Amino acid sequence: MEYEELTIEGRNAVIEAFRAGKTVDKLYVLDGCKDGPIQTVLREAKKQNCIVNFVKKERLDQMSETGKHQGVIAHVAAYEYSTVEEMLERAGEKGEQPFIILLDGIEDPHNLGSIIRTANQAGAHGVIIPKRRAVGLTATVAKASAGAIHYLPVAKVTNLVKTMEELKKQGLWFVCGDMSGQTMYSLDLTGPIGLVIGNEGDGVSRLVKENCDFAASIPMKGDIDSLNASVAMAILTYEIVRQRLQN
Amino acid sequence: MEYEELTIEGRNAVIEAFRAGKTVDKLYVLDGCKDGPIQTVLREAKKQNCIVNFVKKERLDQMSETGKHQGVIAHVAAYEYSTVEEMLERAGEKGEQPFIILLDGIEDPHNLGSIIRTANQAGAHGVIIPKRRAVGLTATVAKASAGAIHYLPVAKVTNLVKTMEELKKQGLWFVCGDMSGQTMYSLDLTGPIGLVIGNEGDGVSRLVKENCDFAASIPMKGDIDSLNASVAMAILTYEIVRQRLQN
Repeated sequence: MEYEELTIEGRNAVIEAFRAGKTVDKLYVLDGCKDGPIQTVLREAKKQNCIVNFVKKERLDQMSETGKHQGVIAHVAAYEYSTVEEMLERAGEKGEQPFIILLDGIEDPHNLGSIIRTANQAGAHGVIIPKRRAVGLTATVAKASAGAIHYLPVAKVTNLVKTMEELKKQGLWFVCGDMSGQTMYSLDLTGPIGLVIGNEGDGVSRLVKENCDFAASIPMKGDIDSLNASVAMAILTYEIVRQRLQN
Repeated sequence: MEYEELTIEGRNAVIEAFRAGKTVDKLYVLDGCKDGPIQTVLREAKKQNCIVNFVKKERLDQMSETGKHQGVIAHVAAYEYSTVEEMLERAGEKGEQPFIILLDGIEDPHNLGSIIRTANQAGAHGVIIPKRRAVGLTATVAKASAGAIHYLPVAKVTNLVKTMEELKKQGLWFVCGDMSGQTMYSLDLTGPIGLVIGNEGDGVSRLVKENCDFAASIPMKGDIDSLNASVAMAILTYEIVRQRLQN
């Protein structure tokens, strides 16, 4: 399941990576370049729903490790991504109600690693992250997950709201962690559930929040603003675990 | 309350630091050196219950930033330590049952910072750390605490077990986080309480565990060994918060 984190440079190498089924986390293409091989790269990127960044030559030169990027540089995931379907299958195999964590823009790799670790221990079936403005499965994330990355499915989706809508059809309902929500202890958090955790600084985005059935808050008596995102995730996750155990 | 993190070198400078009431986190003295000023340094260290490390000249030379250590180097706390008494007073002023976090050898500054942040948000009255084999209040800890270090009393004690014995006389009882313990949901965690969190790798030490009234475990269904120490602290802490709110 695991392979090395790679920066792949050059037209053929990047095309091969796509065709080998590798997940391209980031693709950088020389702005204005439109020849045949580049068109092939862009076609493959489109098939994989990979976001393309058109950048200037100076930027590519700076990023290049080999000095021979030929107008294309790709960052390939350190670990293989899974699918939302696999998470639902896992829940089904275990005869459990689905319990999925959705991250609305976690940027810190230590937080993502910690969340994957906690999700695995809490018996969640997977973690869903968005393609844009979020950290992917890097080597730092793998380390911070203490190995849990090898066991827990992590899926990367283009549109978090669309994924939520599809999961709602599968019977899931959604709760987001939000300071303006109801105290988590007063909510019924049993049943097939998706727990949404927002960005470290900005919290859950408006559209995602509107698509949640409930907002749950953690009681806070302190003198500072908030809890760390991975800590908040752990507290909310274990409230779900507690309610499930008592059900 | 705050002052800069400092490495202080030289006999007079270190003696001054002691006399100014600064908390010396670590003291390094040249092994075999016994002249007058060094005797004064050692006397001041003894008054503050500061642990002295006798080291070779090469070690001091290596640590020295100025090259003029004169056989003495001290690391001074970035932030002022508080006392256990102040924690009990705070609880009293708020009319709350004491709720104190004891850390049995947390070594990672990010974990200590995160724990101070969570403790503040959960309404705990303070965090107690041991003098030996543990990280102190460094600048990294302050940053990871997101400012909570300015509000929550943190005390440093020579002997954790002795401190627990004294707190028991004040009516506190102790629960440690331990995988072999009873599920936390089945324990009554109300009343004046001290929550003990063990070292990242080794958990709670034998003597400290023997002095706890209960061991509480977090249900774990995962494929890996454990949770991150600051995450485990947060989950246990919020189970205490939940039970206190329902009481």
